[in-house]
Amino acid sequence: MKKTVTDIRVRYAETDQMGVVHHANYYVYFEAAREDLIKEIGIRYSEMEDMGIMMPLVETQCRYIKGAKYDEELVVETSVDALTPVKIVINYNVKDKNSGEFIAKGKTTQAFVDKNSFKIINMKKENLEIWTKIEKLILT
Amino acid sequence: MKKTVTDIRVRYAETDQMGVVHHANYYVYFEAAREDLIKEIGIRYSEMEDMGIMMPLVETQCRYIKGAKYDEELVVETSVDALTPVKIVINYNVKDKNSGEFIAKGKTTQAFVDKNSFKIINMKKENLEIWTKIEKLILT
Amino acid sequence: MKKTVTDIRVRYAETDQMGVVHHANYYVYFEAAREDLIKEIGIRYSEMEDMGIMMPLVETQCRYIKGAKYDEELVVETSVDALTPVKIVINYNVKDKNSGEFIAKGKTTQAFVDKNSFKIINMKKENLEIWTKIEKLILT
Amino acid sequence: MKKTVTDIRVRYAETDQMGVVHHANYYVYFEAAREDLIKEIGIRYSEMEDMGIMMPLVETQCRYIKGAKYDEELVVETSVDALTPVKIVINYNVKDKNSGEFIAKGKTTQAFVDKNSFKIINMKKENLEIWTKIEKLILT
Repeated sequence: MKKTVTDIRVRYAETDQMGVVHHANYYVYFEAAREDLIKEIGIRYSEMEDMGIMMPLVETQCRYIKGAKYDEELVVETSVDALTPVKIVINYNVKDKNSGEFIAKGKTTQAFVDKNSFKIINMKKENLEIWTKIEKLILT
Repeated sequence: MKKTVTDIRVRYAETDQMGVVHHANYYVYFEAAREDLIKEIGIRYSEMEDMGIMMPLVETQCRYIKGAKYDEELVVETSVDALTPVKIVINYNVKDKNSGEFIAKGKTTQAFVDKNSFKIINMKKENLEIWTKIEKLILT
Repeated sequence: MKKTVTDIRVRYAETDQMGVVHHANYYVYFEAAREDLIKEIGIRYSEMEDMGIMMPLVETQCRYIKGAKYDEELVVETSVDALTPVKIVINYNVKDKNSGEFIAKGKTTQAFVDKNSFKIINMKKENLEIWTKIEKLILT
Repeated sequence: MKKTVTDIRVRYAETDQMGVVHHANYYVYFEAAREDLIKEIGIRYSEMEDMGIMMPLVETQCRYIKGAKYDEELVVETSVDALTPVKIVINYNVKDKNSGEFIAKGKTTQAFVDKNSFKIINMKKENLEIWTKIEKLILT
């Protein structure tokens, strides 16, 4: 099972008046982390879009454990939770880089979709080459 | 059970290159809708913060049904899913204002927290006046 | 000279830990206000994009006079500063809706661009119908 | 004259439906770059806030030369344009990291402000230690 670690430094614009990262921004961190996971298998998400495949979010979820502060260094640990030919579920653990304390835990589900029709596709049938690469995320 | 309806018009900045609203922005819509729900009981969230009470998010969740487009008129229907003296769970239904089609469904959980200590408080014991108002969200 | 007034209510997500609206968000307010100005002439920006015309920003500028707070009601007064067949310059005055106090003043310059080539177009030559509508912003 | 270089990788959430980075996000990039410039002089912006000094934006400006794409690697070159005891003006050049092409050029003006009163302060008189550090940005 592949697992990637992505460094994030909290930007000032990402805080809100509570003095911590606004909760919606964790989903942006997950997205950045997801890109690193996908690169692991030798493909960029931008290349998939160029090939006519999109991966829109079908569901997202996050539990917030501790507020992250401006300029704090975070790591996002990312791994696949479940994979089928029509969708991929990914887990995220956000931790303070220095203390290792848990900040948040998230999960996202994405469907494989045709860029033009926006219909769900069976990736295994549609593009075996990419499917074989994606499978490496759970098989190796 | 109180239920509020909030109008949202999709801003250009809220779209991404997929041509629809970026998924993280629904949580911002939920927040705007939540404010309207809280106003229903005769208090503003900003007043609660002034009184030393914060309501940080403990968990958020969203299912995406149909992509919303730039300049689309949406409505968010908001109601309480569950309430205890330490937390409140709120449901959101996002629909296209004109067609009534479902766009997204969300759920958020917030804890009642002391502004200074950031410790969870029992709202019923801490501030019976506000608690009585909050209870109206489910009792009336 | 057309002038439109757009209501904006400050969202929590738009604040930062300074307790006021993060400065980058005024450009998002300007964008929402600009949409209202364009609608004045009987066209939506989304329709222009459908017709193959984009109006990317060439320059933006903002002076910040007073920090706006969460849940504050603002108005953005919008009017054309200058218009040529290749670009449009728009002015924005952001005020507190209740007190009338100045919050910020902005200016943006947009070019008329072909959606596919991303080259600047002469709107008067390219699409006289839209040009005639746009001219109404300064002539009436 | 100090000059810092900050790496930015474009996030998906930062694009809009034009397929390029939404113009407001450059101001967020400038902010991240500014932090790196300030660290050069041996202080973090978060430490200044802890000491009661804030640096709100008084004016921001950006010229957009070429749209940046999702996942593009950018560099922001940052240097001081002007410094007085009450304000600092900073310049930003955003370039494609690989090609060196110009993407955008920006300028921001910040005032030195007391955290509690929000009044402008004369940094040289208020805190000579920090002032001496800030001066290094232009003197060395």
